[in-house]
Parts: sequence; structure tokens; C-alpha cells
Amino acid sequence: MIDWLNPRRSTLGTLYLSSTHTIFVDNLETRKETWVLHSLVSNVERLPTNPSGSPLIIRCKNFHVYRLLIPQEKDCLDVLASLTHLSRPERYGELFCFSFNPNLDKELREKDWSFIDLKAEFSRMGIPRNLWHVTAANHEYRLCDTYPSELYVPKSASPAVIVGSAKFRSRGRLPVLSYFHRDTGASICRSSQPLSGFSARSADDEQMLQALMKSNPVSELMYVVDTRPKLNAMANRAAGKGYENEDHYTNIKLQFIGIENIHVMRNSQQKLIDVADLVSPSMSEFLWALENSGWLKHVKAILESGVFIAKAVAEDGVSVLVHCSDGWDRTAQACSVASVLLDPYYRTLKGLMVLIEKDWVSFGHKFSHRYAHLDGDPKEVSPVMDQFLECVWQLMQQFPCAFEFNERFLIQLHTHIYSCQYGNFIGNCQKERKDLKIQDRTHSLWPHLWENRAEYTNPLYRTDHSQTQGVLKPLTTAYCFKFWKGMYSRAEKCLASQQSPADCLNAVREESQQLEEELCSHQERLAWLKKKTPGERTNTNRPSEQVRRPIPNKGELGSPLDYFTDLRSETHPPSSTLPLVPPAPPTSGDPDDFSTCSDFESGVADLSSHSSSAGDEAKEPDSDEGVIANA
Amino acid sequence: MIDWLNPRRSTLGTLYLSSTHTIFVDNLETRKETWVLHSLVSNVERLPTNPSGSPLIIRCKNFHVYRLLIPQEKDCLDVLASLTHLSRPERYGELFCFSFNPNLDKELREKDWSFIDLKAEFSRMGIPRNLWHVTAANHEYRLCDTYPSELYVPKSASPAVIVGSAKFRSRGRLPVLSYFHRDTGASICRSSQPLSGFSARSADDEQMLQALMKSNPVSELMYVVDTRPKLNAMANRAAGKGYENEDHYTNIKLQFIGIENIHVMRNSQQKLIDVADLVSPSMSEFLWALENSGWLKHVKAILESGVFIAKAVAEDGVSVLVHCSDGWDRTAQACSVASVLLDPYYRTLKGLMVLIEKDWVSFGHKFSHRYAHLDGDPKEVSPVMDQFLECVWQLMQQFPCAFEFNERFLIQLHTHIYSCQYGNFIGNCQKERKDLKIQDRTHSLWPHLWENRAEYTNPLYRTDHSQTQGVLKPLTTAYCFKFWKGMYSRAEKCLASQQSPADCLNAVREESQQLEEELCSHQERLAWLKKKTPGERTNTNRPSEQVRRPIPNKGELGSPLDYFTDLRSETHPPSSTLPLVPPAPPTSGDPDDFSTCSDFESGVADLSSHSSSAGDEAKEPDSDEGVIANA
Repeated sequence: MIDWLNPRRSTLGTLYLSSTHTIFVDNLETRKETWVLHSLVSNVERLPTNPSGSPLIIRCKNFHVYRLLIPQEKDCLDVLASLTHLSRPERYGELFCFSFNPNLDKELREKDWSFIDLKAEFSRMGIPRNLWHVTAANHEYRLCDTYPSELYVPKSASPAVIVGSAKFRSRGRLPVLSYFHRDTGASICRSSQPLSGFSARSADDEQMLQALMKSNPVSELMYVVDTRPKLNAMANRAAGKGYENEDHYTNIKLQFIGIENIHVMRNSQQKLIDVADLVSPSMSEFLWALENSGWLKHVKAILESGVFIAKAVAEDGVSVLVHCSDGWDRTAQACSVASVLLDPYYRTLKGLMVLIEKDWVSFGHKFSHRYAHLDGDPKEVSPVMDQFLECVWQLMQQFPCAFEFNERFLIQLHTHIYSCQYGNFIGNCQKERKDLKIQDRTHSLWPHLWENRAEYTNPLYRTDHSQTQGVLKPLTTAYCFKFWKGMYSRAEKCLASQQSPADCLNAVREESQQLEEELCSHQERLAWLKKKTPGERTNTNRPSEQVRRPIPNKGELGSPLDYFTDLRSETHPPSSTLPLVPPAPPTSGDPDDFSTCSDFESGVADLSSHSSSAGDEAKEPDSDEGVIANA
Repeated sequence: MIDWLNPRRSTLGTLYLSSTHTIFVDNLETRKETWVLHSLVSNVERLPTNPSGSPLIIRCKNFHVYRLLIPQEKDCLDVLASLTHLSRPERYGELFCFSFNPNLDKELREKDWSFIDLKAEFSRMGIPRNLWHVTAANHEYRLCDTYPSELYVPKSASPAVIVGSAKFRSRGRLPVLSYFHRDTGASICRSSQPLSGFSARSADDEQMLQALMKSNPVSELMYVVDTRPKLNAMANRAAGKGYENEDHYTNIKLQFIGIENIHVMRNSQQKLIDVADLVSPSMSEFLWALENSGWLKHVKAILESGVFIAKAVAEDGVSVLVHCSDGWDRTAQACSVASVLLDPYYRTLKGLMVLIEKDWVSFGHKFSHRYAHLDGDPKEVSPVMDQFLECVWQLMQQFPCAFEFNERFLIQLHTHIYSCQYGNFIGNCQKERKDLKIQDRTHSLWPHLWENRAEYTNPLYRTDHSQTQGVLKPLTTAYCFKFWKGMYSRAEKCLASQQSPADCLNAVREESQQLEEELCSHQERLAWLKKKTPGERTNTNRPSEQVRRPIPNKGELGSPLDYFTDLRSETHPPSSTLPLVPPAPPTSGDPDDFSTCSDFESGVADLSSHSSSAGDEAKEPDSDEGVIANA
């Protein structure tokens, strides 16, 4: 394995391929293991064979890159073919989440799926029951198959208006409530574009928007935010779609934001990755390439859409309807960024989970296509959630005390959006996940992250800090945007040994807690001693908020299930939880029963004659069995 | 006064000009005062009069900008003329430091000047007495008038060699010790360029370098680092200067680093300031302009010079002689950056003061010229120390736990390098400061900063952290360099209301300390109670390093003398310490006795007829007397 930063630190070792992971075990005394999940591999590239061997580059969707030098060209071709096959599943059943088994009993797994409760979230918002209610119109996804079955709509909108509005919207994605802002009574609603073309109109849709506006009694205006560049929106009119005609709708104000489409974003991120790929760029090369990628410009546009919406809702008390084309990419970005700005709850660990569950998972977002979970059209791939997470990160740079979570949490989220290890981000909408029986056959990411929250908390976060209250008003001047080193810079990822300030602060906090505990025990003893020596002044209570946060004990940290993102856990032995060999073939012949046969379908490829009988001995790194290549 | 970020927040108020400050007092209830030190003003610009008045822009050397709109054009012209005159003193005696009087008695002021002791610093380095000693050659600056009188040279270098070497070096700046690295015995020496031309050589200079090399007994090699681009060094040969010929010197290895000259740096910083001047640049404009300024490229080059030297000294154990042309700009940068990397002491508050005193103040650096203390040749101005401070800041970004001080300390240092409020940075060398009697007539900055150190400490700093020990090995890849928002971004400076994480952490630390104090008092009481109830287990000592640092009490913070850098102190009443009116004319007629007459010389300009009798009433912001203009 070639060390990209320091070739002299490259190591000899043995490469193993399981049904789910590529594992490299070095020959040094440490026997350090590097685990790479197949479903995180974005591409595998073989360079021309040179005298020392055949180089193979494994690039991952979380921007990790592994370089191998395989002595035999034939072995390299074998690994290339196997990895290419293993990293491009064609059917949902082949995804890792269906074979991933963290040894939880059925009951616990089911309980885990109820960790995030969107009904509770909508009730937390304090939606007034006299103005909004849940419509049954989308029961069994009759109205819109990419929406959730429960939709919050204005009480004043009749069922006919709801159906009519859905018919006038692309893919039936009618305007519904996404976020209600209790302080002003204004709301964020979302939809897809209207099927307005050059002149079409729908009385139902017009009434629907009127109802949305009126559900905010204090305001006589509503913004319609079209997150697309105006030219793109106009181009859609030729296809019978487009945007609202302000003359037809009463008291709406149309605002274009100009977030580019998924293709522009995909190309932009590719250029950004190329920037980070430069081994030792000059300052000019780096800055020029960063500018040329346009990435930060796009992140800025998305953040600005959120700022616009948040300002309308919080300062002007005006409701906003947000849409783009289908209302599942830019709309989700704009709504969720605005929510993070508006509501301190979404700046907590659990709150961000809830927000993602609501605005992305529940409202429909093409996870499978955007993050290439399945082998498919490369033009459907786009870093939509990457950009949302980066908006949150850029906000963290401006408001370091406002977020309960740290950068690591965002990076971990990013990895799992791509990893397919958990069921949360499988499929493109609620209906699809129901059909796939995701909750019966996979595990939920959220409780796992919650259990390890000590790793993801921002020590600067204080519940009594001004930044944790009220609405965030970030600057969006160009110089406030930074290149996200922690996400994109290879070198940064390699330098995990440099202790982060967060680690350091966590240590300080732990020590503060110890001090406080000690203080408490002394106080108890004082109280006890006082009984013996009466006439003492009482002096016992001293609340100290910031050291009271619960810190899970060490045993709960570093679950061995996350092999592929945490360098520390890479030192765990590979023997315990993940199958290095295919399990017994399924007894049931039902081809839909993915839960039992998935490992078999994607099983260990028969890469070469001498690896066919790997058996149990593959767990022994020294064994020749199961060895694919000596790199 | 126009608010640049938010014109609606502009305020009406009254402008006062004292002999030392421009003061703006707004008409609001808060009577907020903005104090601008004349010596910090870099230029004053009047824009064409428009219907609402005459705009005046005051730009400061610490990148603050104040925009005024003065109703009457005549008043504006008066203010412009006065400010232009007041901000461009022509003689040392007019500088603020000679009138600045923080009410310290003579004894205390003298004691303050001994706060930094370079003799103690050289002895701290652990220089072996058998290899190095102080030469008397520069007694009374006979050998080199820009060097300090005490110079550390190899013991093996005879007086004749020392004199001969000085004669062969530009301005007599012979090679002398700047830093000794105890761990390896290697040292950093510094000098100016040799007068080698195309073929000249000096046996003495060659012997001097030989002596330097031999004072590191374990090494048979020495690097000569010429921090200039090779082309520049070659061009100097035509003027009889240049660089060492490797054929003439035994076992030296010449290395060019390629830091550009002061003119390139001045232009680069001007472009950077223009970047920050853009009100709302697009992402592309900003990144393009940042790249085009070349600023980060130059900072990178300087940091790389330090990395090269530190690596040679610490890893290879090889001594390094550093020079540029005169050895007082790039040489000071390279030596001091290398020292910060090598020695954790220079990463402490006091250590950085010592380092600046040694490598910049003592070894001679043209403060007066580079930072335009006196009206002079604009081509001599260059942000040499700005770049050193920025290198330290960039390092702080990579090693957040390694520095005892915070960003505010660097910004405060930067301001005072330009402000002329303290005597430390007046004049270009030790001799000049002696002639000016700086220590008798001005105050020292260092004790003032030290007293307020609670404001300047980095809460992430821990003496037991790995980053605080040993040598820092920073990455110098392009994406590790950031635009220094806190220094250059106007918006950032305006948003002082956003609490910094450092403030937040300081609060945490203070609370930790309180907890510990409480714990101590409980322990004492426990011990006392135990005497009454014998047979108790002792459990008293629990060292907790990071909460033991002394935090001066509130009373010591926020000295009212620093009006012009700290927004908080701008709310102090203007009545107390600074003269709004000229003091009585000096009784002594001695023109050299600046300490008494400086206020008179630079005194309140007689700007208009109605301000001539300002008198004591000028202290009343409401009074018409002393009012120059209503802005």
C-alpha cells in the first residue's frame, strides 16, 4: 500500500476481499488493518504495469483514496474485476445494509427505527390546530408516490383543491408544510414546479397558495421562492412546466435564487476533488483551481437561499413556498438550510437527524440515484446532500458555539449517506422503502450515532450561549467561505494523528466534570461531618451548567461496526462481526427474500484458484488461504 | 459616520480632533465614542461633495476604515488638511510615544523596560560556553551600527576574523548567533549578503563561516540560506554584493528560498487590502483577487523558509546561516519563523515578545521606514512584520493547541508596531533608540500586554499537550493557507459583537478555576474537621494544570489607554487620560526635549475660527466649543 503523502512510509502487506470489504493487513508488527467498504468505492483505476508491479487506485465516495502496488499483473486484473463488480450492485438486495448485522435482537432493531418520530417533530413546532391539519389525501400514496403518506396542509384547503393542486404540480408534489415558525406564525412550504407552461393555470392550485398564505393570518403576502436560475425556470415552460405567473396568484411575490442544477454541481465537485488530488499545488494553482471549480460559489448560493427564506419567515413574518423543478434537490437544500438558521433545535445532534429525516428522507430525495447506491445513469449522480452538509459546516465556522455537533458528525453523516450500511438512505421515497421492507430488514443509523454522541459533540456548544438561541444571521460575503479541508483534503484525512482542538477540549471538559464530581463527594462528606460538628454554615449547591452534559462512558464509544471511517477502529481485529466468507446458501428459494440471500449474491468472488477454499482460516492474516495478492 | 456594512445604521455625531486622536461621539443616548489615533492613519481621502455632504474616508494602518459625511465642504477640507498633517509626523519627537503618559512613576517605567532581558534569553538557550561567547567587537557600535552592541560569535573566531568578516558583509552585518538549538547543538546564525561581486573573496569571512560550522562539533556541513530568489541574488553581484561562492567556502551548502523583495510584498498587500475593500464580491471575484494578490503565496514562501531551517537544525543537526540583502527583512522573517517552529518557548506569550525583541528590535529592523512612522519614502514601506505575524497565525490554524496566545494578541501586536504609542518599535536599531533616549522618554509595550494577558491567552493551550512540546512540522500545501479574516476583513472587525470561541472558552476556564478554588476551600475545611473526627483517610491533592494559570482580576483588564483597537474601550468617556487640548507650552526652550513639547508641536490644529478657544469645555461632547464638524 502506497502512502501518498510519504512514499517512504508505504507498507508491504496482504490484501483480502470479503463480500463486503476490501481489507489490507500490513506485514509490520502492528498488523494494522485498513478496511474499505465495497459500497463506498466510487471507482477503481489500474495504472500501466511498471517494473515494480501493477498500481491500483481505489477512490471512495467519501474522498478517501487508497493506492496499491500489486506485484503480479494478473492478480491486479483479478482484484480490479472483482472490486469493480462488488462496488456496483445492480439490485437493492445486494446492498450492504441487507447483510449488515450488528447483533441486535429484533425488538431492539424495531425500537431503533422509532428513534426519530416525525409526528412528534411536527407537534414540537407548535402548529396551530385551527389552521393546519394532516390530510388523508395521500393515504397509500394515491396522490403523490414520492411524498410521505401524512401531509400537513392548511385546514382551509378542501380535498378537491388539494387534488387539483397536486394535478397541477410536477409529479404530483403539491405544496405542503415543511416547517412552522412558532414565533411569527409564518411557515416554509415546499412543492415541485407548477405545470404552467406558457399560459396554463389551475384554480385549485391558485386556491391552494391562497390557503397557504391565509394560514398565516398576520400576513397578506407570500413569497414563492424558485431556487432555480430564472433562465432554467423559463426553459421549463416549453415542456409545459415552469413557474407561477404572479398575475394569476393573489399576493404572491416570486423570487428566483439561482442555484444551479445537479449536472453543474456534479461537474463542480469533480473539479474540487481534482483540486484536492494535486500533490503539491502552488498557491496560484490551488486558488485558481478552487475558483475554477465554482464549488464555493454554489455553496454560497444555497446558503443565500436559506438566508432569504429565514429572513422572510423570522423578520418579515411572511410565509414562503419553496420549489425547484421536482422539489427534491434544491428545494430540500433551501428548506433545510433555512430551518437550521431559524430553529436552534436543528442545531443539536438529534435535531439535525430529525431535520434530515423530515426534509430529505420523508419528503423524498433520490438517494439511490444521487449517491450511486446502485449501478445506474451517471448523470443522475450529484452531491446534493454534500452541499447541504457543507452549508452547515460553513455556518459552524461562523458560529462555533451554535452547534451541538462537530465536524466529525457531518463527515460521518456524509459517509453513511453513501455507505448503504444502514437502511435510512436506501430508496428514493417512503413508498419505495415500505416496498423494500427496509425497517424489517435493515438497521437504523440514528440510534448508532446517538450512542456514540460523545464523539460528535462540539465542546464549545453551550445551551445558554446567544448563538444557540434564536435565528442565525450569517454573513454570506465571499471571504466567509472556506475550502472544507476536513472533507476534501487527502492530507488532512491522513493526519488523523494530529489531535483536534475538540479532542483537547473534551479532555478539559471531562476534567471539569471530574472536579465537579469530586466537589460533590466532598460536599456530601462535609454534610455528613457537619452532623457531628453542628453550627456550620451551609454551602453546598453550585450549579455549573456546562459540565453537566452526560458523557457516555468509554465502553459505549468506538463501536467496532464503523471500520471504514475511523482510523482508530481500523486497528480492531477483523474477526468479529463481518463475514469474510459467504454464509451458507439460502434455504428459501424466494428471490425477493433479500435478507437471507444477499450475501450469497454479492458473495466473495472466486478471484483466483488458490482463494476458493478460504474458509475460516481467512481470519488469520498470516494464512495463505484467502490471500488475493501481496501488495 | 457612515456604517459601511449597514448604511441604515449610520449615526449623526460630533467630530473632535485632539493632538493625538480623532474622536467621533455619536448623538445617540449611548454617546458612543470612536477614537482613532493619528499615528495609525495611513491615508485620508476626500470624495467629491454630493448633496448630502462631503465624504471623508480615513484608512488606518491596522486596516480599520472610517467613513464620515461632513455637511460643510469647508469643514471637510479643514479636517482633511489637519488630519493629513497630524498623521504624517516628520520628526521622531512628534511621535505619540513621546507624549503618551499612562501615569506611571519613573521607577516603574524603568522597571518596565527591563521586562524583556535578552541576556537571560541567550542563557536560556543553553549556549555552550566553550564554543560561543560575547564579543566586544561591536562595543559602541564600532563594527556595525545597526547591530546590537552584544554579539554572540564562535569562540574560535579571532577578533581579526570578526572585523574582516564584517568588512566583507553589506553594512558590516557579519554572521552572528541568533538561536542555539540545545537538543542538536546546531544553531541559526544571521548576517547580510557578502560583498562578493563576481569574484571577490575574504579569507576572514571564509574563516568566520568555518568557525560557525565548527561550533557545531557533530556536523561537518553548514547550510547558507539565501532567502532571496536566485535571480535577485545574482543581480546583486553587479553591485559588488551577491552570495557565497561554494567553491571558496569549505563545506557550505547554499540554498535559495525565493522570498520576494519589499516592493513586491508592498504591492501584494495593497492588492489584498483592495480585496477586503470589495463590499460584496462574488465568490469568483474574491478568489480571483486573492490569487491575483499573490499574498498567500508570499506567506507560504516565508513559512517554507522557516520549515527548511527548522528541519536542518532539528532533524539533520546542521547549523544554518541565513541572509538576504541587508539581513534585516527576509532574514528576520526566516529566523523568527524557524525559531517559532523549533522552540516551544517562542509559542508562549512572553516567548513571542522575547523573540520579537531579539530578532527584530535588537538585530535591527527598519521599523520607522517599513511602517511609515515618519513621513518618508513610500518605497521603503513594506509589511515585513505583518507577514511574520501572519505566518504565526497560519501556524495557529494548523496547531490550535500549540500557542499560549490567541489571534487577538497578534492583532494587538500588529497595531502597536504601527501605532507609535510605545517606544519599543521606534527607530531602526539599538543605536538609534539609544540616541533618542527611548527608554527615558517612552513606555514599553511588553509589560502592558503582559498585564492584560488574560485577554490574549488561547484557552486551548495546554503545557502538557504534544503540540506544545518539540518541533512543529506544519504542512505547507497550498490549501493549508487561509485568508486572515480577523486581520483584513472589515466586516469581521465590525462584528466584534459576535462572541469568539476563545471568549466562551475563557469563561469555561474561569468557571473551572472557581470550581477548583471551591474544592480547595472544602478540602481545607475537611482537613480542619478531620482534626475533630480523627481516623479519616487523606484525599487532598489533585493537581489540575490547565486551571492553574493565573487570571488577573477584572480590575486589571481593559486599560483605558488602548482606545483605538478595542471596541469595548471605545465606550470609555474621553475625559480622563488623553489631552483634548494642548498642554501649556513648554517652559524649557530645548528643542530636543521632546518629552515636554511634543504635544505643543503636534498640538490641536487651529482648524476653524470657532474651534480656537476650545478650552476645557471641549470635554463636554455637547458643547459647541471644540466641535469641528457635525458628521
